Amino acid sequence: MTECEPFRRIDPDALESFVADVLREVGVVDEHASLLGRALVRADLRGIDSHGVARLETYVRKFEAGGFNPDPDIGAERIALAFARVDADDGPGQAAAVRAMDAAMDMARDAGVGTAVVENSNHFGTAAFYTQRAAEADFIGVSLTNVGPDVVPYGGTEALLGTNPISVAVPTNREFPITLDMATSVVAMGKIDHVAAVTGEEIPDHWAVDADGNPTTDPREVAALRPLGGPKGYGLAVIVDALCGLLSGARASPEIGPLYDEYDEPMRLGHFVTAIDVSAAMDPDDFRARIDEYVDSLKASPTADGVDEVLLPGEPEARRRRENERRGVPLSEGTHESLGRLADRYDRPLP
Amino acid sequence: MTECEPFRRIDPDALESFVADVLREVGVVDEHASLLGRALVRADLRGIDSHGVARLETYVRKFEAGGFNPDPDIGAERIALAFARVDADDGPGQAAAVRAMDAAMDMARDAGVGTAVVENSNHFGTAAFYTQRAAEADFIGVSLTNVGPDVVPYGGTEALLGTNPISVAVPTNREFPITLDMATSVVAMGKIDHVAAVTGEEIPDHWAVDADGNPTTDPREVAALRPLGGPKGYGLAVIVDALCGLLSGARASPEIGPLYDEYDEPMRLGHFVTAIDVSAAMDPDDFRARIDEYVDSLKASPTADGVDEVLLPGEPEARRRRENERRGVPLSEGTHESLGRLADRYDRPLP
Repeated sequence: MTECEPFRRIDPDALESFVADVLREVGVVDEHASLLGRALVRADLRGIDSHGVARLETYVRKFEAGGFNPDPDIGAERIALAFARVDADDGPGQAAAVRAMDAAMDMARDAGVGTAVVENSNHFGTAAFYTQRAAEADFIGVSLTNVGPDVVPYGGTEALLGTNPISVAVPTNREFPITLDMATSVVAMGKIDHVAAVTGEEIPDHWAVDADGNPTTDPREVAALRPLGGPKGYGLAVIVDALCGLLSGARASPEIGPLYDEYDEPMRLGHFVTAIDVSAAMDPDDFRARIDEYVDSLKASPTADGVDEVLLPGEPEARRRRENERRGVPLSEGTHESLGRLADRYDRPLP
Repeated sequence: MTECEPFRRIDPDALESFVADVLREVGVVDEHASLLGRALVRADLRGIDSHGVARLETYVRKFEAGGFNPDPDIGAERIALAFARVDADDGPGQAAAVRAMDAAMDMARDAGVGTAVVENSNHFGTAAFYTQRAAEADFIGVSLTNVGPDVVPYGGTEALLGTNPISVAVPTNREFPITLDMATSVVAMGKIDHVAAVTGEEIPDHWAVDADGNPTTDPREVAALRPLGGPKGYGLAVIVDALCGLLSGARASPEIGPLYDEYDEPMRLGHFVTAIDVSAAMDPDDFRARIDEYVDSLKASPTADGVDEVLLPGEPEARRRRENERRGVPLSEGTHESLGRLADRYDRPLP
């Protein structure tokens, strides 16, 4: 939301209720409708509009057409003392991933660490939603998901890998955990779509390739994304696929169904989460104090031209969240119109 | 070794014995001397010269001056069912990290997953040495280490973070595991030193900064490295520090002692390793078959101009290893001279 002024700001609690109400109208079970409201609005609060309520209309279509199961039987099976497998039963990824992270935290309370893989799942929104849940309970949280193919392998020209994101969150004494949440491509497709639609400017040639697999600077010619730093982002994306897709029994990126268009098709992707219980290693107060000291040393760095302050991973999003909680969730005109259509259809006034 | 022809090739087994013999002369206990021989030569075999026998003379100095403990009491304490802490007692990082990975695999056999942190450790060479050890036993292995400050935080101008590498290895039916092993900076300092010394060419401005913290294209002006992809590599480096330095009780990157110069100073850095037992999730044969199918789908991608084949993470290194096992370990003139000095000093003929 840095490039343009929001069309309107909406109270976050009211927006969350609206999302949940719409989803209940579509037949989504109460618990999942509430969770999706919280997850989507949280993304908007943190400025991750691409994973916020802008997705609601698509989710509704997926639920209506059967690609997302509105009443899934999400089962967690503990396959070892510290390892669980969750079958999402084609339900929303958010519900399955919360279940997986909660199982990982439960196991970590006993074993120091707990891991869960999720199969038969769908789009789970922002990976940070699950790691921050863990960090707020004094666990170091890890969450990964594979997604459908948008990214070429290093040296290849065909989109076979997902943007396969990685999130890790670490407890702090600040009002937010240190939170990494990154795609393993240079940029997300949404960013290129935005440039193509809004500014039309050239993009750097390491972002994407055209239909022939050649690097392109024209955002309208983009056919696939390039991995972050060449072999590094490629390697990270492959590892995410191995953990989320292959180890869980889910599909790997090349086989994952689309979020858009084929609304009756479940995506059948997978997630991988881990929780590490800080208290197994040391008193969490001591750990957070050690983190504080470390953060102070990073913040003490002189800054580059035009930079006011060295920020922690997750700090820009935490600042946006604080502002948006006070001023309201900023919605673009397109997102506002999309919610308006849902409001009319389900006779739920848009707040 | 792509830029210049090696000065000489040496039989890998003979080189390994030479390294171990020299270290035994310095007082390193037998088990660790052998392990260091294997670890350093393995790095050279895989083409990672910067972490191979070129380091031996520095290691010898560290052992002699007391920065590395030649006879450490490396203790592994199981602090939870699936979580261990290893105190390296200022010994060589390789010995501590092998101990940690073996503990992680033992715990994972019971619990599905096992994690170990290491404190009071030193330089551990290539992170892939430990993850490949795990993958060869049908575990997915993760290893991380923090190292001393060479990298600026995103938006900052002072070297406060290490290149803090990440390795993950995944079992396959091929002759090598899928192996990611990457620094979280754009490039390693060694690469810039090489450009400065050998070609003197300009470097891309996203690689490094000068003494004022400004991006530089002159390899002789480089004062610190830049993180991979800006906030992404920065975030990864911070997470590695949190897991390796802060959770273990070791030092974080800004406080880590140098490998060079202050030879009597222990580095007191930390490692983090995890092993995931594939057999907890599925029959390892089935897992490797799933990986095979996935690898085939990546290999089927059309290739970019000038690229013969899409390679897996770790495949270029596996190819070099195969060649070097056959033809001998290639040593540069500088490394050969360095080993020659040790051969003279300890009266051990260089093979």
